[in-house]
Formats: sequence, C-alpha cells, structure tokens
Amino acid sequence: MAQDKPARRPRAEPPKGFRDYFGAEVTERKAMLDKIAEVYHRYGFDPLETSAVETVEALGKFLPDVDRPNEGVFGWQDEDADWLALRYDLTAPLARVAAQYRNDLPSPYRRYAMGPVWRNEKPGPGRFRQFYQCDADTVGSASVAADAEICAMLSDALEVVGIPRGDYVVKVNNRKVLNGVMEVAGVLDPLDPERFSAERGIVLRAIDKIDRLGDDGVRALLGEGRKDESGDFTKGAGLTPDQAEIVMGFISAKRATGAETVARLRELVAGSAMGAEGVQELESIAELLAAQGYGTDRIVLDPGVVRGLGYYTGPVYEAELTFDILDEKGRKRQFGSVAGGGRYDDLVKRFTGQSVPATGVSIGVDRLLAALRAKGRVSADTTGPVVVTVMDRDRMADYMAMVGELRAAGIRAEAYLGNPKNFGNQLKYADKRASPVAVIQGGNEAAAGTVILKDLILGAKIAESATLEEWKDRPAQVEVPRADLVAAVKRMLAQ
Amino acid sequence: MAQDKPARRPRAEPPKGFRDYFGAEVTERKAMLDKIAEVYHRYGFDPLETSAVETVEALGKFLPDVDRPNEGVFGWQDEDADWLALRYDLTAPLARVAAQYRNDLPSPYRRYAMGPVWRNEKPGPGRFRQFYQCDADTVGSASVAADAEICAMLSDALEVVGIPRGDYVVKVNNRKVLNGVMEVAGVLDPLDPERFSAERGIVLRAIDKIDRLGDDGVRALLGEGRKDESGDFTKGAGLTPDQAEIVMGFISAKRATGAETVARLRELVAGSAMGAEGVQELESIAELLAAQGYGTDRIVLDPGVVRGLGYYTGPVYEAELTFDILDEKGRKRQFGSVAGGGRYDDLVKRFTGQSVPATGVSIGVDRLLAALRAKGRVSADTTGPVVVTVMDRDRMADYMAMVGELRAAGIRAEAYLGNPKNFGNQLKYADKRASPVAVIQGGNEAAAGTVILKDLILGAKIAESATLEEWKDRPAQVEVPRADLVAAVKRMLAQ
Repeated sequence: MAQDKPARRPRAEPPKGFRDYFGAEVTERKAMLDKIAEVYHRYGFDPLETSAVETVEALGKFLPDVDRPNEGVFGWQDEDADWLALRYDLTAPLARVAAQYRNDLPSPYRRYAMGPVWRNEKPGPGRFRQFYQCDADTVGSASVAADAEICAMLSDALEVVGIPRGDYVVKVNNRKVLNGVMEVAGVLDPLDPERFSAERGIVLRAIDKIDRLGDDGVRALLGEGRKDESGDFTKGAGLTPDQAEIVMGFISAKRATGAETVARLRELVAGSAMGAEGVQELESIAELLAAQGYGTDRIVLDPGVVRGLGYYTGPVYEAELTFDILDEKGRKRQFGSVAGGGRYDDLVKRFTGQSVPATGVSIGVDRLLAALRAKGRVSADTTGPVVVTVMDRDRMADYMAMVGELRAAGIRAEAYLGNPKNFGNQLKYADKRASPVAVIQGGNEAAAGTVILKDLILGAKIAESATLEEWKDRPAQVEVPRADLVAAVKRMLAQ
Repeated sequence: MAQDKPARRPRAEPPKGFRDYFGAEVTERKAMLDKIAEVYHRYGFDPLETSAVETVEALGKFLPDVDRPNEGVFGWQDEDADWLALRYDLTAPLARVAAQYRNDLPSPYRRYAMGPVWRNEKPGPGRFRQFYQCDADTVGSASVAADAEICAMLSDALEVVGIPRGDYVVKVNNRKVLNGVMEVAGVLDPLDPERFSAERGIVLRAIDKIDRLGDDGVRALLGEGRKDESGDFTKGAGLTPDQAEIVMGFISAKRATGAETVARLRELVAGSAMGAEGVQELESIAELLAAQGYGTDRIVLDPGVVRGLGYYTGPVYEAELTFDILDEKGRKRQFGSVAGGGRYDDLVKRFTGQSVPATGVSIGVDRLLAALRAKGRVSADTTGPVVVTVMDRDRMADYMAMVGELRAAGIRAEAYLGNPKNFGNQLKYADKRASPVAVIQGGNEAAAGTVILKDLILGAKIAESATLEEWKDRPAQVEVPRADLVAAVKRMLAQ
C-alpha cells in the first residue's frame, strides 16, 4: 500500500519577536501590577480596559497620502474595507475613549490601564513586538496639581513594589521653561510661533542626545553642526556660542535645592513670559509635593530630564532607579529610567476639535520587573506542589483521596498522572516541579496504614553539602500514619 | 485670510464588535479570575501566557488549497510574507507551546491560561469579537484521573467565585460510550472505521440539537430526515426506528445514581469493546471523584451532555448553573452552561507527528460573570474616593495635603482637579464618582482650623426618603478640627 506523503508540519514557534511567559514570569508580573493597581486605586484612578484592536483612523497611524497604515503598527483591512490595527500604546485608546464618552465620564477623569501593546518593529535582543504597559492619566485637568499628584503616585508605586526610598528618584522638568530658554536664545518668537521651528527641532534633538554625545557633542549640534566618528556631518541649529550657552545652561540648571534650581531657571528665562510660566509651574509642583510630604529624597526638579520634551507641552517627569547593576559585560552602571510621562494638552482634539488638557505616566513594566529581579525583590510563590506518587496504579483513587485532602487544607498538591511504571521518572518529575515534598505509599505502607513523606528540599541540600552530619537531626524521610498525612506535610512545609 | 479646510475628524469609536470595560467591569472580572487562579494554583497548575499573535500556520487556520487564512480569524501578512493572526482560543497556542517546549516542560504539564481571544465573526447583541477565556489543561496524561481532577477543580472554582453548592452541577459523559452506541446501532464498524462516517456525522449533529428540536426532531434526523417549519428538508442518518431508539436511549440514559447510569449504559453498549471502555472510564471517574469527596450533589454522570461529543475523544464535561434567571422577556429559564471541556488526544500531533493525550476545560468568563451579577455575588470595591473640594484655588497645597494624609491612611481620596469656580460642579463630580464623603474647607473653616465633612451616602438617603426625621440622630454634615480629618473621615466611612 502506498503511503500518503505527509503534509509539511507547521513550525512550533511563535512569530518572530513574540515570546511566551511561563509560571513565575506570569505571577511575578501580576503581583507587581496588582500592587501598582492598589496605589492607583487609592489615588482615585479607575481601571479602563479597551480592546486590543482599534480602527487605524482612531489610532491616527495613517501615512499621509497613502492608503495603508503607517509602519510601526500591525494592521489589516476588514471585510468592510476599514483598516484595523493592534494598539501600539495605551494613550491612543484613551484619547478615543475620552472623546467617545466625553459626556458620560467624570471630568476630570482619572484612569489607569495595564495590558499588552504591539509594535511592528524589528525585534532585537530583549526587544519584543508585544510588551506590557502600565499607564495612569488624568484627563480634563489643567491644574499642575494633577501633575504633582502623578509624581507622588509614581513614587508610592515604586516603593510599594519594592524599590526602597533612596534607590529611585522622580525627576521633574517643564517644556515651557525650555521654550523660554529658546526664546531667550533667539530661536523662538512668541509673535511668530512658526519662525525658527526648524532650528528648535534641531535644538530638541540635540539635547535629547546629551547622554550619548556629552556636552561638547550637544554644543556642536546647537552651533554649526557635528561630524561623527564615521565622518558623517549633522547640520546644527546655527546658534552662536552665547546662544548655545543659554541652552546648555538649562540642561545643567539643577542645583542643590529646588528653590535654588528655580532661582537659576528664573535667571535663564528672564524676559520670556512663557519661560516664567514654566518656572512658576515647577515651583507650584514642588510646593504641592512638599505639602504632601514628598521631599527631594523622592521627587526633585531636574532640568536635565530632556526625554519627551519634544512631545509634552508642560511638566515632564521621569522615574530613575539610582542603584548600580552589572551590565552584560560585567560593568557597573545605573539602572536608569523605568517610567516617564508628562502633560499633553491636545489629547482628544483630533476627534472633537476641542483641546482637553491631560497628564499621565507610563511605567515600563518589563524594565521595572527586571530591576526588582536584580534586587531580589520579586514576590511570587514559586514553590511547586506536593507530589503524591503512584506506586500501584490500581489504587489511583487512594492517591487522589490524599491529594484531595491536601488541597482541601489549602496545600498545593497533585498526584503524578503520567505513566507510573518507572518510579524514578516520578521523582524526576517532582524535581522538575520544584516539589517540596513527595508522598509515597506502596503496598507495605498501605497494609500498615502509613505513608512515607520525602522532604525534597532537605534532600537536595543534603545532596549538595554531602555532609549528612549537619542534617542528622532532621530526617529527609519520615513514615507517618495515613490519618496524619495533612498535619505531617504541613509540619514538613513549615520547616 | 482664507481658512484651511479642516481634515475630516476620525470617528471616536472602537471597531464594530469591540467594546470598552470601565471601572467595576474590569475589577469584578479580575476579582473572579484571581479567585479561579488560586484554585488552579492549588491543584498544581502553572500559568502560561502566550502572545496574542501566532503564525496562521501554527494556528492551523488555513483554507485548503488557498494561501489566505481561514475566515474566523483576524489575520494579516507580515513583511516576510508570513501570515500572522490573533489567537481565536487558548488551546491552539497551548498545542504550539506543548510541541515547542516538549523537552523542557514537566510531563504531564498542567497549565492554566486567562486572557482575551479574538474571533472575526459577525458581531451581534452580547456577541463580541474580543472576549476572555479561562482555560486549564493537563497535557501528557492518558489517565482518567486527569479528567476527574479537572471536574473537581471546576467544581471548586465555581464555589470559590460564589456559586453555592446546589446551584451548579458538573455533568460528565464520554465519547467512547457514544461510539459504542453507534457500533451497536450499526453505524460504526471497528474493522472499517471510515465506513458510515457520513451517517455518524448526521447522528452527532442530530443529538447536538436535542435542546432545540426535542426528542421527536432528533428521532426524525436519526431516521429519514426532518422537514422544518419553513418546509426545508434535512436529510437524516437513515437509521431504522430500532437503531434510532438505541441512540435515543443513550441520550436519556441518566438514572438516579451513577451506578444505575453505568448499568444502563453497559446494557446499551453490550457487545462493543469501545463502548465498554467508555463506560469503564465513566465508572473510574465517578470512583476517583467519590474518593475525593465529590458526590453527585456536585458532579454527575449524564449521557445527556452532548455538546462537544463530536470534537472530544473520551471524557466530556460541562458545568451548568441550575438556578433560574429571568430572560430578556421576563420568562424564567435556567442559566445553563458556563464551562465545558473534555479529552482530545491529538493536541500536538500536527507539529510533531506524535499523539499526546490532553484534557482540559474552558470557563466562559463573561457568562460566569453575568451569572454572578444575576446572583448579586460579584465582589469588587465600587466605593468612590473621598473628594476634597477646592473652595480657594490659592490654597491647593492645603487641599493636596489633606488628600495626602487620607491616602497615607489607606483611604481612597482625591482633590477636585477641575476648574474650581463653580462649587456645584464639584458636588456633581463627587456624585458621579460615587464618593462617600466630601471634604470642604473655605476661608472661615481655614481661619478656625476646621474642615466640614459631608456624608454623601447619608445625604442621598435623606434626599430619597424625604423624611429627615429618621436620620436626625445622624448629621449628614459635621465640622471637625483639621487635625482630626483622617479619624473623622474613617468614622464616617465606617457608619
């Protein structure tokens, strides 16, 4: 008989850039997000869960003059010819919801959202095309009290998940101050906002590169331009050295106290109304935070925070972890940023035509989780189940009864449900499950009305240290009456 | 100056068939899933979170002879020409993971998964294109102890979320018994498994319609066929009345006790080896469950459970809620099924060529949540925050200090962050937020060092009943020293 040629088998792998999360990876993240959600709840924020799919139109991810969605999103055309796409962040869906339900939601509307987002980008090491975000935003409040509140909440959230005070700092800056600085430096004309916009773009991009290029590199980009190591030339903003010094002065305006920083900024933006407004906002935020007991050990004014200044319209904030970790090459480096946010005052304008002020923060879930792991601060129960082994497959009901008793007593437990023939496989299974205790009842024990409990944690320790001496007072294996099973397992687990 | 013609504004709505979940909708579902996860954990199941996106190849959703994915999934072609799609259930990703990690995972592998799945189907009332599933499966165990365990776990899960014993029943059936019945009825030949497959398909579809068509309708479909009300004729399986009676006897084989049901089934499948095997499996499941204390008040053998019999290969189980609810027309009806599952022994065969036995259950998250709501059993804290109102916008720091103290004491609280000019709006906001207490401090109170607390819950009750008399001992508004703010709010919340 001719054999059918088998069809090619599908590859058992996820698409490139996607991954699976097993066991503790899931529960550790969940434990962290649950704690953050408690803080958000206490601050009056309500959860919002939008669907993963939005219309491309609502996301605003259309290429101009092209009828396909922008790169960067996973999109497809549905049967009604509408383009749909997976959300790439949690802010775009919030904007849609804030517009759609503007007459029903409380105003201001405080909401938090936690969930995956998708980016159609080249995956790389540690860079995935699906990852979690954890956002909190206040929509409809123009008050800097809303910004201050989010900074305080971010500080509380970091402490509650296990980052001790002193190991993090929330830094606050303000886009309006930078605008004031640019006005003073001569690249912003309040009477003609469009003028110099190319130069301002270069200034924004230049200061955003301060960490990589250092002061001299940024100075070059503020001036005529900069030739990089490969010889490529990047055109600069064309500021004179004096003008450039004003911008550089902004980045390095941080002083020992908030009051001194404010005084320094006020000097820098002297003569700019918008700059003065920005400094006033920073001062208010510091005052509001001080009134709630948040001192500079937790939240500081720092004009050196430049990330996002091009996007946000007022206060900008960023949480940095200040402890050292070892990088992949074994070098010490600061852990760095785990959260950032700020004020963006045109959240729903695309939909409604009306400006609605909003401010919010996004926590980088994977980075924060990595930080907690680096500090040994993850909290998830990784203990495996008690494994009831199967010596006699005809007495499965007896073994399941043991498991049932253990579970009813709140103990994580299971019977070995593979082929019980090879007992060694059962112990290997218990080992793979990180099982703390194996329960064994063969024919002799059944006849005697007993069970054997094997302390697998102790057993592993004995195997490691090889000196049985130190463990001699604690038997790695005990035989107890069947009726004492639950109590004896509890004793062993408590050791 | 000519005005620019504004671009058409995007519609502020989700795609058709998708929806948003607000506040308590999110927390109630989360609370339910957290409780279920605790039960699954105690049973030794580990969480698994796969990504939303799979290759269409891994999902197995290709149309035959067509290079586009099947309808029913949301799919798109990525830049490498691979077809990707959103998962339509949690079983297909499990199959991929079980194949991919077959050398690393413990075997048997118990896993649970909770999360959204997507169906590209016509949306309808209450039918959405993204919804939650909550699955638990055991991969790699051929033992019916694995099936029994999942039935017990399902029973525990239902009780732990708030369905009292007696208000639900887990029903167990077995596909092999049906095969035995079909063998006896003459539409299955063990020596030639392909023979009569068309007839068996008709039999399976017929008994699946028992709820809608009743005994006579099914009998007609088992025989020559059936003409429906519109006059359309559906061809039947062509069984003689005697053969049809055997199949009908299977559906109605449930007796007062499990032992009697087993005896009745054994009669029906007399002469069929596969039928006898199925009956034996049902008997073993009943015995294993009884050994763990799960009696027929929780789990029963019921050959009337026909859903999924065409898909599963051995034991089949279904959880039904037995209490009445009122349907949309005000008629009493039983709530019905909230979970179902069974054994499917070819989970990873598509990937590896090897048969791997598996059994699992899927809880219909939205249906179970609806049931809990109908019974008033949802548990989520829906109390809004204490709202500190703003009488004097220059003293924002004072109000934020109050909020900070309340939050530090674990009380959900917020300041009003909208425009404070209209005080009525602030109280309307507090009402919309379901706030229990409003805190008020105007200039007089500030000078006197006091705050006013308004009991909004009591206020609402007084407004409803209109007889102030019954509330006269409990003032709806008190003035307390500023220093007593937290203690006084706590007292008011405790009332």
